[in-house]
Amino acid sequence: MMVLVTYDVQTQDNDGKKRLRKVAKNCMNYGVRVQNSVFECNVDNYHYQKLKADLLEVIDEEEDSLRFYIIGNKYKNKIEHYGKSNGFDVEEPLVF
Amino acid sequence: MMVLVTYDVQTQDNDGKKRLRKVAKNCMNYGVRVQNSVFECNVDNYHYQKLKADLLEVIDEEEDSLRFYIIGNKYKNKIEHYGKSNGFDVEEPLVF
Repeated sequence: MMVLVTYDVQTQDNDGKKRLRKVAKNCMNYGVRVQNSVFECNVDNYHYQKLKADLLEVIDEEEDSLRFYIIGNKYKNKIEHYGKSNGFDVEEPLVF
Repeated sequence: MMVLVTYDVQTQDNDGKKRLRKVAKNCMNYGVRVQNSVFECNVDNYHYQKLKADLLEVIDEEEDSLRFYIIGNKYKNKIEHYGKSNGFDVEEPLVF
């Protein structure tokens, strides 16, 4: 299923900057960065729970905001994108 | 239906900063800001198309990224939030 992860991490101090990098790095293990703080993760429920646990270990719940949106399995016609893209279709083959 | 709007606007120059403010201002006409560049908009299809048109008039498609995710009508159990919140539940009554 497609799960969208969006986050705001406070980066006024170095700890915050470290958390931001860690959140992004963790998300990269599960999906594709489509905007600065937005990842699309095509995961089963086990990996969704693991992703959540990994991210909750990183963020500071007093300072940061972390949101998950379950888009579901049939997500192709639920997502529209306009403008500059920095992601790729998670189901398209990666040609090296 | 709940539609999620996420955006990245390039703000290296004043035009970009102006576009960022305009995108946020437009989104406020349709929904709730839940993170810096994330809005939850509970709209019918007419207003969804209008929202899209309004935002497409503002962004620079060469520089900015604008994404829409249709979460649907039954969205309560499709959204999870952890940490600092700056939004409110769009269906909760606003008490003044």
